[in-house]
Amino acid sequence: MGACATLEDRFRRAALIGEAAGILSWDRAVVMPEGSAAARAEQMAALGLVGREILTAADMADLLDAAGQEPLDDWQTANLREMRRDWVRAAAIPPRLIEARARANAACEMAWRTARPASDYPAVLPLLEDVVRLTVEAGQAWSAAQDLPLYDALLDGFEPGGRSRDIEPVFDDLAAFLPGLIGAAIERQATRPPRPIEGPFPVDRQEALGRRFMAALGFDFDKGRLDVSHHPFTGGATDDIRITTRYDEADFLTGLYAVLHETGHARYASGLPQRWRRMPIGRARGMTLHESQSLLIEMQACRGGAFLAWAAPLMAETFGGEGPAWSADNLLALVTRVERGYIRVDADEVTYPAHVILRYRLEQAILAGDLPLADLPGAWNDGMAALLGIRPPDDRRGCLQDIHWYSGAWGYFPTYTLGAMAAAQLYAAAKAADATIEPALAEGDFAPLYAWLGPNVHEQGSRYGTGELLERATGRPLDAAAFKAHLKARYL
Amino acid sequence: MGACATLEDRFRRAALIGEAAGILSWDRAVVMPEGSAAARAEQMAALGLVGREILTAADMADLLDAAGQEPLDDWQTANLREMRRDWVRAAAIPPRLIEARARANAACEMAWRTARPASDYPAVLPLLEDVVRLTVEAGQAWSAAQDLPLYDALLDGFEPGGRSRDIEPVFDDLAAFLPGLIGAAIERQATRPPRPIEGPFPVDRQEALGRRFMAALGFDFDKGRLDVSHHPFTGGATDDIRITTRYDEADFLTGLYAVLHETGHARYASGLPQRWRRMPIGRARGMTLHESQSLLIEMQACRGGAFLAWAAPLMAETFGGEGPAWSADNLLALVTRVERGYIRVDADEVTYPAHVILRYRLEQAILAGDLPLADLPGAWNDGMAALLGIRPPDDRRGCLQDIHWYSGAWGYFPTYTLGAMAAAQLYAAAKAADATIEPALAEGDFAPLYAWLGPNVHEQGSRYGTGELLERATGRPLDAAAFKAHLKARYL
Repeated sequence: MGACATLEDRFRRAALIGEAAGILSWDRAVVMPEGSAAARAEQMAALGLVGREILTAADMADLLDAAGQEPLDDWQTANLREMRRDWVRAAAIPPRLIEARARANAACEMAWRTARPASDYPAVLPLLEDVVRLTVEAGQAWSAAQDLPLYDALLDGFEPGGRSRDIEPVFDDLAAFLPGLIGAAIERQATRPPRPIEGPFPVDRQEALGRRFMAALGFDFDKGRLDVSHHPFTGGATDDIRITTRYDEADFLTGLYAVLHETGHARYASGLPQRWRRMPIGRARGMTLHESQSLLIEMQACRGGAFLAWAAPLMAETFGGEGPAWSADNLLALVTRVERGYIRVDADEVTYPAHVILRYRLEQAILAGDLPLADLPGAWNDGMAALLGIRPPDDRRGCLQDIHWYSGAWGYFPTYTLGAMAAAQLYAAAKAADATIEPALAEGDFAPLYAWLGPNVHEQGSRYGTGELLERATGRPLDAAAFKAHLKARYL
Repeated sequence: MGACATLEDRFRRAALIGEAAGILSWDRAVVMPEGSAAARAEQMAALGLVGREILTAADMADLLDAAGQEPLDDWQTANLREMRRDWVRAAAIPPRLIEARARANAACEMAWRTARPASDYPAVLPLLEDVVRLTVEAGQAWSAAQDLPLYDALLDGFEPGGRSRDIEPVFDDLAAFLPGLIGAAIERQATRPPRPIEGPFPVDRQEALGRRFMAALGFDFDKGRLDVSHHPFTGGATDDIRITTRYDEADFLTGLYAVLHETGHARYASGLPQRWRRMPIGRARGMTLHESQSLLIEMQACRGGAFLAWAAPLMAETFGGEGPAWSADNLLALVTRVERGYIRVDADEVTYPAHVILRYRLEQAILAGDLPLADLPGAWNDGMAALLGIRPPDDRRGCLQDIHWYSGAWGYFPTYTLGAMAAAQLYAAAKAADATIEPALAEGDFAPLYAWLGPNVHEQGSRYGTGELLERATGRPLDAAAFKAHLKARYL
């Protein structure tokens, strides 16, 4: 067996171990009993170590070099590039640190689950100190191995090629642009407030409607599931894509749009190149593109008039709704309402970037050692006041609201807003390329949209960097222009 | 680190990989979408290979020898013995065969799921041929490594130390003893047939009642779950013990007694020695003892008058049942009804051994090459006619009914009846040791029973062989005497 084939075998095996971890993660969030958390952390740590060992075998450097000498096509060459990247990052972290991080992250996350509803930041603070200490240790190791600044070394784990120097000007631009837009949008909607729709909305009907929309989006229920978890997510494994949502009997739109959002992620995952499944090149490119696919569906397509022309009657029929409150126009107004709120996951697309920019700035300060964790609540609240003009009344609605930091995901947040920008840019390009996309949405038909997204995004896997993929698909590098144009068109 | 400590580290890691596989198996049976089966088989195969690699590292023989030279206490010595056993069995099977078996077993099991309801044995036959071929190949490898006959080498994987030469005389004895008992029991119950109880029995109430009984049995819901699957089982992982049942709105007793049965398994799993968790010595001794713990609860305790004195009013209350049909005596008569039937999992404890003996004889003939698989349906039906006097009208109720062979579990069946014998012997010894055990059951109190089972069975883990453990606990090697005495006392 040649070096390339040997490497493919090993990476396939590491991917399968990763898939097992994916199912175990889903299980932890959806069905695992609370008391099993410590045991599960040990299982996850063992899988992580095994995966690392496959990627860091003593002969890997030689194999990677030897594979580079073999005759490879474009895809194989790109695959080898991604293999090398995986190897560099895996080899940088000693096994001891993998285990320590798995344990610290799991312990902190479990404590956070109790601390958040109790708004008790001090209870989780010592565990968060451990998480940050070990995160910095890992970040320094990647920083040294990849010759990147600390923050970028962490970001690179979620968004390969993502760099602060590219993010800063965009975020500064948005931070300057958005306050005016938010004010104008709120003022505008005050002149014609949407009519409220009345619940209760039974959970079983919400679920049935979500499944109806998932089917329209092409979700394959023979190779995937819809379940309930505290926080919606997309997980699972190859050919087994699992999305979750949550239901509120007083408000069906939040849970339903979470389903649409996660189905966007799911379609990306299921549309990745089959020929390269379980290879590094066959993976999603990174969290920016992943988020672009969820936001393209949720924000660009499904919070638009075309989709709602088809969806509004189905919503009304599902819940027995009647009258002008259930019109497509009114539902559109409801799902595009702008409001300054404390909670990121409940935020509209106009205020959302402010939440992300706050976290991005705070996590940079914390990782750089400029902001002690004990001071995080105050800094958070000051930042919210500065960016959105509101001050959280407690930490539950402040720095305790998101799981990311407490579970060890530092350097992740910027990808949400980069993804929103990419979504706007891709959707504009798709519509420009095929004028039937929006008319089809008005019939509940996503086929034309996916006919463009498939070859331009999904089927490319990790062949190109995020920037290059976007440039090939849209003719431009990623910037905020399409996102700003979209917000202006929709909200002003 | 010394050799023993190094070995403990490695076996702990292999156990964690096994726990991940345990959760994935549960997932496959309870929640996995059908279309994910092939991918799941790959994941399971990868975990199996990784576990094997840990156990068969090049330095294992040296480590095992070196550990034998270290000062070890009794438990450590027994642990080392079990480690060596694991190593011998793991090293005997080449990785290629592990992968091939994982794929063949998964493919056959999935085909069986469709073939069984369709009663279409020919559809699954070619896949079953693959399974048997690879099973024999593995059996021959173990046979050579452990110096055992082929059948015993397979049996040994489920019941360490289990040998056909010990089983044959017991099964011959039972095969001679049972027909007379079955006839007499059926005759006796015909003179006073139990009154039927009337459904429907709503699933949610069945589940609530099952949970009530699980709580009485000491099941820890903070570290375990109850779910639904096609066939009830106990699975999961350390600190995460998952049992399943199935519900029939026309008959609540079947699903409820499955819950009791699986809870017996679960209590054994959760009662294993904490000090040795994830060590070979900390595992359940084998399927005979595992089945003894489920049958002791289900058959010995919960199909007895003491338990039903407590349980019958709860059953009546749960379903709003009234009148003499809901009396403890009548419910006892219902749950101890003897009937010659086609289906093993629906069989009473008197006819059950006939089902097992049939399978035991058939699988011996198949593995020895004396019975071509194409002839299995006829041989099955002839065997049923000879052993129970009834002939299955189709293969769905014949050789297609059980998952075992189709999923690659050959050599497993005898442990059901060995377990029934062990259950009777252990329960008799427990009652002889503590006269309060049965009176406590009449109050729904299982504490005295578990106070005896804990130190005598559960907390011993795999310290002793099945035979030695039973002899220490009951003063006698395993035989059919207690089982026969139990059947005579209950049914004549």
